[in-house]
Amino acid sequence: MAELRQDPVSGRWVIIATERAARPHDFYVSRGEPKGGFCPFCEGNEGRTPPEITAIREAGTAPDGPGWQVRVVANKFPALRPGTDRNSRDDGLYRAVGGHGAHEVIIETPRHLTSPTQYGPEHLELVLRTYAERSEALSADELVSYVLIFKNVGAGAGASIEHSHSQLIAVPVMPKRVAEEMRNCAEFYRQNSRCLLCHIVEQELRQGERVVAETEDFLAVTPYASRFPFEMWVLPRKHMSHFHRLDARHIPPLAGLLHQALSRLETRLKDPPFNLAIHTAPVGGEDGQHYHWHIEIIPRVTHVAGFEWGTGFYINPMEPETAARYLREVSAEAIRGKIRPVDTAGFEQLHGPPGKE
Amino acid sequence: MAELRQDPVSGRWVIIATERAARPHDFYVSRGEPKGGFCPFCEGNEGRTPPEITAIREAGTAPDGPGWQVRVVANKFPALRPGTDRNSRDDGLYRAVGGHGAHEVIIETPRHLTSPTQYGPEHLELVLRTYAERSEALSADELVSYVLIFKNVGAGAGASIEHSHSQLIAVPVMPKRVAEEMRNCAEFYRQNSRCLLCHIVEQELRQGERVVAETEDFLAVTPYASRFPFEMWVLPRKHMSHFHRLDARHIPPLAGLLHQALSRLETRLKDPPFNLAIHTAPVGGEDGQHYHWHIEIIPRVTHVAGFEWGTGFYINPMEPETAARYLREVSAEAIRGKIRPVDTAGFEQLHGPPGKE
Repeated sequence: MAELRQDPVSGRWVIIATERAARPHDFYVSRGEPKGGFCPFCEGNEGRTPPEITAIREAGTAPDGPGWQVRVVANKFPALRPGTDRNSRDDGLYRAVGGHGAHEVIIETPRHLTSPTQYGPEHLELVLRTYAERSEALSADELVSYVLIFKNVGAGAGASIEHSHSQLIAVPVMPKRVAEEMRNCAEFYRQNSRCLLCHIVEQELRQGERVVAETEDFLAVTPYASRFPFEMWVLPRKHMSHFHRLDARHIPPLAGLLHQALSRLETRLKDPPFNLAIHTAPVGGEDGQHYHWHIEIIPRVTHVAGFEWGTGFYINPMEPETAARYLREVSAEAIRGKIRPVDTAGFEQLHGPPGKE
Repeated sequence: MAELRQDPVSGRWVIIATERAARPHDFYVSRGEPKGGFCPFCEGNEGRTPPEITAIREAGTAPDGPGWQVRVVANKFPALRPGTDRNSRDDGLYRAVGGHGAHEVIIETPRHLTSPTQYGPEHLELVLRTYAERSEALSADELVSYVLIFKNVGAGAGASIEHSHSQLIAVPVMPKRVAEEMRNCAEFYRQNSRCLLCHIVEQELRQGERVVAETEDFLAVTPYASRFPFEMWVLPRKHMSHFHRLDARHIPPLAGLLHQALSRLETRLKDPPFNLAIHTAPVGGEDGQHYHWHIEIIPRVTHVAGFEWGTGFYINPMEPETAARYLREVSAEAIRGKIRPVDTAGFEQLHGPPGKE
């Protein structure tokens, strides 16, 4: 029977509608054919992107040349940019603010790989370190209110370039969804003297039925009020408000768990398009006690239609308990099998030797 | 230059990013090929849908047979249904409510047409009348908190059947987005002793640059903080809280303006997929003074990606002032040309005579 569930973090309602007894193959959505041709994000093509903001690169190599592992550049068509108009304007009822901020691209690998699962957990550590460093650097701008790091995989999830990359947007106002999560978490803290997400972690571990994977420090679950089939959240088990304050020793276990969670998803749904976003506390330290960062992973395997746009309500045809069970069943071999050894023949065939156009 | 704008009704922020100087043809997205084959919504095929809840039909014709103009049936796979479990349950932190409610399909025309623009404004009056009647009937259920009427056109907007139809969902809890709009509008009313949307109507008419079309009673605009290129809102000029309390004399001018707005959109963007949703006050009379119903039309011509999911923030590559100008330029001939006379050859070719499978 259908059931309505409320997500305590955002306040949104979801209809869990299981009339059609869905199974994973009902949600197979292709990422699209490999694009082939020239890729501006491959090693050797650094001249075809905006200049490097930072990179993890071999000693002695020069910026905007080969020899890097992770590379950060400005978005070629930035939604926001630093140093532009910072004023706000009122026009009768309406309010506008100048487009000061940042819009960066984190090129995750010099190789032409299309998902973090292919480059494996050790390389993912470098990517997570870069996320944290760029986020910290932009948080120092006193006009920035929030830094969002997100990732689109597959055309169906909004990616225009298939080479694995993430984006960072720093905005000068508080996004509505962030403000809502903060308000709900602050209210819970006021009433319970405790972080809502710490409480969720504890309940999920105790109940177990929505747990996909866990380590000593992190947890991957299908959330109780999942909006989408196979939606997943990755959370730190201990309280931590800001992603970018992540301790260096936490990066390897987080990379391991995130790699595992994404590999389970890709294996089970045959490489679906997906979005990933890091939900973290706003810039500044005020929300230290009541907000708890986490990563939300959204497979783009169902349509968001008029009902969702009209109400912010979602219809999810799969119970998260069922999705978690399917995700847990994926074998360790399948997860390891997603990693592509360096210099695979497929890479050479598709793009020619790195650096050649 | 990029600018951030805040929508006063929902509170959300939008980045209006015009770096790429977009034009209408940048947003051409196909609705997909005509599907052909059997259509359960065509006249003569009434036995292939759930039983009729109501219909506008010729005197002397029987339910679930031919002779109707607009027909309402239950959704074949209802997200919610009447009379099911009405209890709410708490599970630790989490809250769930039984799936009591309704999920209906409004089949807008007996002919195989794929958009309201094709059947024209006079027939659209019958559809709007049916919306209001079903909405009023379901509002009488004391367990229903909100009735949403919406419409998906094209596969890219989530439609699985191309024959022009709308949906109605009655939910037993207050949707989050509705609660937010109510809160913002109530706060504005408290501070200004005036309805926010009445004020918006007045400012839009005075400024004029976002007006797409107007009549004595209704207004079509591209909203100031449009999330999507060519997003449009249709609003009554005079205050009215609930759509279903619409006076009979307002139905012809509303049908005329809505038909015109959709025809301008379809002509300009070459029949894009779109969603339409009626935003109205919750069931019950309490919000009479501060909320003002309106119709939101969302062309599905850009991707909603990780940034939007992470923050509830949108990036729109076209200024609404520019979109309104493009929409105003569509000629009256083009609008009239969308209407398909009864018994077109195309209809017969695609589906055979009505009633034959």
